[in-house]
Parts: sequence; C-alpha cells; structure tokens
Amino acid sequence: MNYLDEIKWNVEGLVPVVTVDATSKQLLMLAWMNREALTATIKEGRAVYWSRSRGRLWRKGEESTHTQTIREIRLDCDSDAIQLLVEQSGGIACHTGRATCFYRRLVGSEWKEIDPVLKDPARLYASRQPE
Amino acid sequence: MNYLDEIKWNVEGLVPVVTVDATSKQLLMLAWMNREALTATIKEGRAVYWSRSRGRLWRKGEESTHTQTIREIRLDCDSDAIQLLVEQSGGIACHTGRATCFYRRLVGSEWKEIDPVLKDPARLYASRQPE
Repeated sequence: MNYLDEIKWNVEGLVPVVTVDATSKQLLMLAWMNREALTATIKEGRAVYWSRSRGRLWRKGEESTHTQTIREIRLDCDSDAIQLLVEQSGGIACHTGRATCFYRRLVGSEWKEIDPVLKDPARLYASRQPE
Repeated sequence: MNYLDEIKWNVEGLVPVVTVDATSKQLLMLAWMNREALTATIKEGRAVYWSRSRGRLWRKGEESTHTQTIREIRLDCDSDAIQLLVEQSGGIACHTGRATCFYRRLVGSEWKEIDPVLKDPARLYASRQPE
C-alpha cells in the first residue's frame, strides 16, 4: 500500500501533525496536513502544512523565515497522527515570537504565560532575511 | 473567562491533546479531550481522554494499568491544542507495548517500525497489577 494510503485522513482529508525539535525534543506546535502538504513536505525537505484558516498550503517560515527542516517523519499506532522531527530555524516556532506555541500553563484555573518572547513578533514578520 | 471557555473546541466539542513525558520530553501520544475529560483530568490528576472509537471517557491505564500522572497542562497560541506533561507509569504509553505511539518512521516510501516492543501487548492487558 502507498504510504499516503496508510494514513487515516479525517473527513476533511486532514491529519494532525505534532512537530518536535529534533535536538532538544521540545514540543513546538500542532498543525495539520492534507495529502498535498505531506507530499510537498517530503519533496522539499521542510515542513509544509495545510492552513485551515487560510484554506491553502502553508510553507512554515514563508513569512517569518523560521523554516523547519525535516529530520524524521513518524506515524502513530492508529495511523491518524503524524510526528515531525525538525530543525527549527531561529529557534522560534510560534508566531508570537516564542520557541513553542505551547507557552501557557494551567495554574489554578488560569492559563498563565510562562515562556518568554524571544523576538518581537513585529520584527519576526518585518524581516525576510534568514537568521 | 473560565479556562474551559478559552479553549477552542472543534465542532464535535473536542480538542487534540499532545502527551509528552515530563522527564524525558519524549512524545508519547496524541489523543482527544472534551470538556468532561479535561475536567476529570484536572480533578483526578491523571490523564482522562475522550475515546472517539468507544464514544466514552477513557481513563488512560484503566485496562493496561499504565496511567499518566499529570505534571503540567498547557495550551497553545491558537487555543485549539493542549499539551500534557505526564509521568508515564511503566514507561509504556502505547497499546502495542511500546514507549511511544509514534514508533513508525518514513524510510523512502515505507513506514518502518523502529521502536522496540517493551512488553507483550497480551501481557499488558492480562495483568491488572500496577507495575
């Protein structure tokens, strides 16, 4: 069977993708892929997601320059979730300028921001120079 | 706003949950929660998911004894994905007897099993004694 056909795509033709830093193992983000995005990811050697809000392929870093170079692609036991192990350019995965998108921690009954902003988001998108 | 209301639940009332080992940072699994599951997780201090296949709450380890004790609960920038940092009982998160559910790696155009089975799945579910 084709490796794409082994994946259990949801009713929208998508699968959740968990992206992890290949070196530090830090969880960076959760995003989504369709067949086209996964095919492009493999072909280009960098993370290409399906943007559900924009309804189009989203080459991670196309605006921020913070691309993700693929080291490994994994599939889970149920074939309905993918893991990417990546090299995160600039060490910043989140559009808020933080290393990880998971920067809020539940403390009591509040989500507290516990991870620092490493780069001003305005600068993140103003500069198109690779870092 | 209530911390539950800050979460963007999908049309089915669910949110994807990325579960990571609190010590090793290894990605263990991706599962789903509804409001009831998250509330139970917080109350009980252990991972309680929503089983989409069984259509009911799933107390992780209820059959395998491999429970997940909660260390941290995090929310991502878009408020549509949760991260759990857990202490994984027995070091085995996957029903196949492996440490992680993400045990297959894409090599060429094939998903290759690269993580070892640490415990026979038959034994995993036969024994109800904590390990």
